[in-house]
Amino acid sequence: MTDGKQNVSAEDSLIARYFRPLATDPGAFGLGDDAAVLKAHAEDIVVTTDAIVEGVHFLSGDPPDTVARKALRVNLSDLAAKGATPAGFVLTLALPDADDAWLAPFARGLGEDAKHFGCPLLGGDTVSTPGPLMISITAFGRVPPGKMVHRSGAKPGDRVVVTGTIGDAVLGLDILRGGAAAAALGVDEAARQMLVGRYRLPQPRNALAQVVREHAHAAMDVSDGLAGDLAKLCAASGVSAAIDAPSIPLSAAAASLLKRGKVGIEALAAGGDDYEILCAIAEDRFESFARAAGVAGVAVTPIGTVIAGASAPRFLDGEGREIEFKRLSYSHF
Amino acid sequence: MTDGKQNVSAEDSLIARYFRPLATDPGAFGLGDDAAVLKAHAEDIVVTTDAIVEGVHFLSGDPPDTVARKALRVNLSDLAAKGATPAGFVLTLALPDADDAWLAPFARGLGEDAKHFGCPLLGGDTVSTPGPLMISITAFGRVPPGKMVHRSGAKPGDRVVVTGTIGDAVLGLDILRGGAAAAALGVDEAARQMLVGRYRLPQPRNALAQVVREHAHAAMDVSDGLAGDLAKLCAASGVSAAIDAPSIPLSAAAASLLKRGKVGIEALAAGGDDYEILCAIAEDRFESFARAAGVAGVAVTPIGTVIAGASAPRFLDGEGREIEFKRLSYSHF
Repeated sequence: MTDGKQNVSAEDSLIARYFRPLATDPGAFGLGDDAAVLKAHAEDIVVTTDAIVEGVHFLSGDPPDTVARKALRVNLSDLAAKGATPAGFVLTLALPDADDAWLAPFARGLGEDAKHFGCPLLGGDTVSTPGPLMISITAFGRVPPGKMVHRSGAKPGDRVVVTGTIGDAVLGLDILRGGAAAAALGVDEAARQMLVGRYRLPQPRNALAQVVREHAHAAMDVSDGLAGDLAKLCAASGVSAAIDAPSIPLSAAAASLLKRGKVGIEALAAGGDDYEILCAIAEDRFESFARAAGVAGVAVTPIGTVIAGASAPRFLDGEGREIEFKRLSYSHF
Repeated sequence: MTDGKQNVSAEDSLIARYFRPLATDPGAFGLGDDAAVLKAHAEDIVVTTDAIVEGVHFLSGDPPDTVARKALRVNLSDLAAKGATPAGFVLTLALPDADDAWLAPFARGLGEDAKHFGCPLLGGDTVSTPGPLMISITAFGRVPPGKMVHRSGAKPGDRVVVTGTIGDAVLGLDILRGGAAAAALGVDEAARQMLVGRYRLPQPRNALAQVVREHAHAAMDVSDGLAGDLAKLCAASGVSAAIDAPSIPLSAAAASLLKRGKVGIEALAAGGDDYEILCAIAEDRFESFARAAGVAGVAVTPIGTVIAGASAPRFLDGEGREIEFKRLSYSHF
């Protein structure tokens, strides 16, 4: 203590500069303590955790602010599918170096999303790593006691419903990698940008959380691919499903590539990174659900029916023939 | 879906095999959902998060079971210092590969500690990384409403108290790296093993959580180094402190190295990885605190006094001369 001042490490200074402004919840104690407090107000706390790794879930060249937003949004998407209202999050940031030019836009993007989605930073840990950059977020939500929406609970006869559009993100990733979709799109820059945007910046359906909680028998978010995630939901519910593949909602860009034979429906339905909500809605609740979703401003599309049985969900083409999937979803190992 | 079976990815199978047995809390839903539920029972939920990175917080050669235990224990140590009873944790595991020979003992060690400390696995995320291995844990504890023990709250006149012994872990790390402590210890294999054990396997003082909650004005765990962490506690409390360096509790091995001039008190007090509790106890509560700590089986040692002022805490030698610290603690950047 040669200078007689209080010790402030570079790590503390980094936290103070970039992350303290995001810690707006009183339970975060301005990031000045070793832990945060989450008040429960007689609700259940829903806890979800998702990490993103450079080179696996995002690319080195992705803008820092979209990396931050994606890290938070993949967790917000889980909360939405579980019917929970965001309450806050903790952040683990493993950094190869403390680069202001990267950290400033990262923290700004994270802060803007935290504010927009009402999900303040509660705490975290910043560690050095030889690389790659990794962001792990644990997010918290609130539901009335016992009201979290589960993967299990789908019943034969339920409509299978999905929000938004499917398959854009995997096309966006393909474009960033200079793949076939990039070539097929040619000079259509608007389509390229839309698809890349869908990869880099998920649109979690938190606006639909309450509607899902009030209507769905079962729900989960589509993160690893529609086909694989539906298989998980069916397995957890002890049911099967029949999906009308032409009903799967696609963006105009994805539909055009599909129509021109540049991409298969399997690739779109197994690609992942969609961060849409997949849910099972009782037939007699569907109209009410669709109306409420409309009020919430979220597009919902019925794509099939839950059926009895333990076999894997089947995807049928326009002629009712089963489409064979080589793989259902992304797997890390 | 060429084989007609439900899709089970390698990732799901890894989770089912190694981690589902650890998910003993009903709110974990057997790791079969996208989120967990933490019931609050009108208590505050204390949230803490700490990550450990291969090559930074643990060494490649460290046994997988101690890596797992350390990842959990560094978080349990935070809960203990905040006066909280463990309630569960979520795990993010970033793996270079899914190696059964590593995962099996890792999960076994984690499960044994989760059971021992009453802190079940609630959920998590397993992702692939090109490396290094990283484990990020967010742990939850419960305290009566408003009763989390803060860093702030220390008052002039309070005793500064620390549990256990300080400086063993940094010596253990030095031994693993073949440094000066290793050479100085020569053939004393028992001392080597004790010190290495203190580095690899922290002993979080959860047995003292309630005693801390009932007695301490302020507390935190010593993770980055006693000197730096005390400076943080003092800064948060708006006070200073005078520490009697010869009172800092040392193991016989550390004391011997210090006496022989093989290590300085600065290195021990700034080394970090101690995972002891540092707290400020009102003078008139100290006797009651020490008695309760004795009943809980945790050694506590008064090492100095909180004083008024904004200057950094001072460490004084046996003759009352101030010891100058070149650095106070470990910093990542």
